[in-house]
Amino acid sequence: MLKAGDSYSEVFSYTQEQVSIFAELSGDKNPLHLDAEYAATTMFKKPIIHGILGASILSKILGMHFPGEGTVYLKQEIDFKRPMYVDVQYEAQLKVVETNTDKHTAIIETKIVDKESGKVNVLGNAHIMHKEKI
Amino acid sequence: MLKAGDSYSEVFSYTQEQVSIFAELSGDKNPLHLDAEYAATTMFKKPIIHGILGASILSKILGMHFPGEGTVYLKQEIDFKRPMYVDVQYEAQLKVVETNTDKHTAIIETKIVDKESGKVNVLGNAHIMHKEKI
Repeated sequence: MLKAGDSYSEVFSYTQEQVSIFAELSGDKNPLHLDAEYAATTMFKKPIIHGILGASILSKILGMHFPGEGTVYLKQEIDFKRPMYVDVQYEAQLKVVETNTDKHTAIIETKIVDKESGKVNVLGNAHIMHKEKI
Repeated sequence: MLKAGDSYSEVFSYTQEQVSIFAELSGDKNPLHLDAEYAATTMFKKPIIHGILGASILSKILGMHFPGEGTVYLKQEIDFKRPMYVDVQYEAQLKVVETNTDKHTAIIETKIVDKESGKVNVLGNAHIMHKEKI
């Protein structure tokens, strides 16, 4: 059973090819994500990962591992604090803030940090329901 | 220039194949999204689109059309109010709540509704920055 204080982390990265696949899939072909020359003219200097693609690791972890199969995603807040780049190792860090065992719901702090520097790229809370595990 | 009350909408849908591509890309291979037999045993009855994939239309619109190229995504809140299914027409409805022309930021209400019933699937606010258009 998931309880306050439980935590889970996973290291991940995205390639430029994966970013291109997501651009096709979502229709978000903003050159900031795809075109190194264009990105060089922006404050980001090089192509950045779509924020929503970066955040999808949170959905993966909640649905597959923590707490896993059967998770119902109720809500996600996402603060995009720093841009995420391709081929950089990030760590998704999840920590249970509180659970409600009557309603089978939990609030989980969801954070994505740069593995090397520890700086926070993405921050927010996930609200989930899991009938067996909460 | 974007101002309070401005709005934009776009109709979209996802196919099962696109959901499978997103499952590969994100690593979220929860059978709820991929396996009709498994999904039939759940409260959802049939495979549902990953919530984050459904929400990616919001990022596409903000980055490509409203206000478009140059948008910096600061924050997104997503309430997953109802499941979204493949091959169903949804409408993304965006409406500017407020702008701050000094900081070049805006809060935009972002909503995804079932095109036929008008029921709300996804609700939340986007916080963005755009140096030229806000």
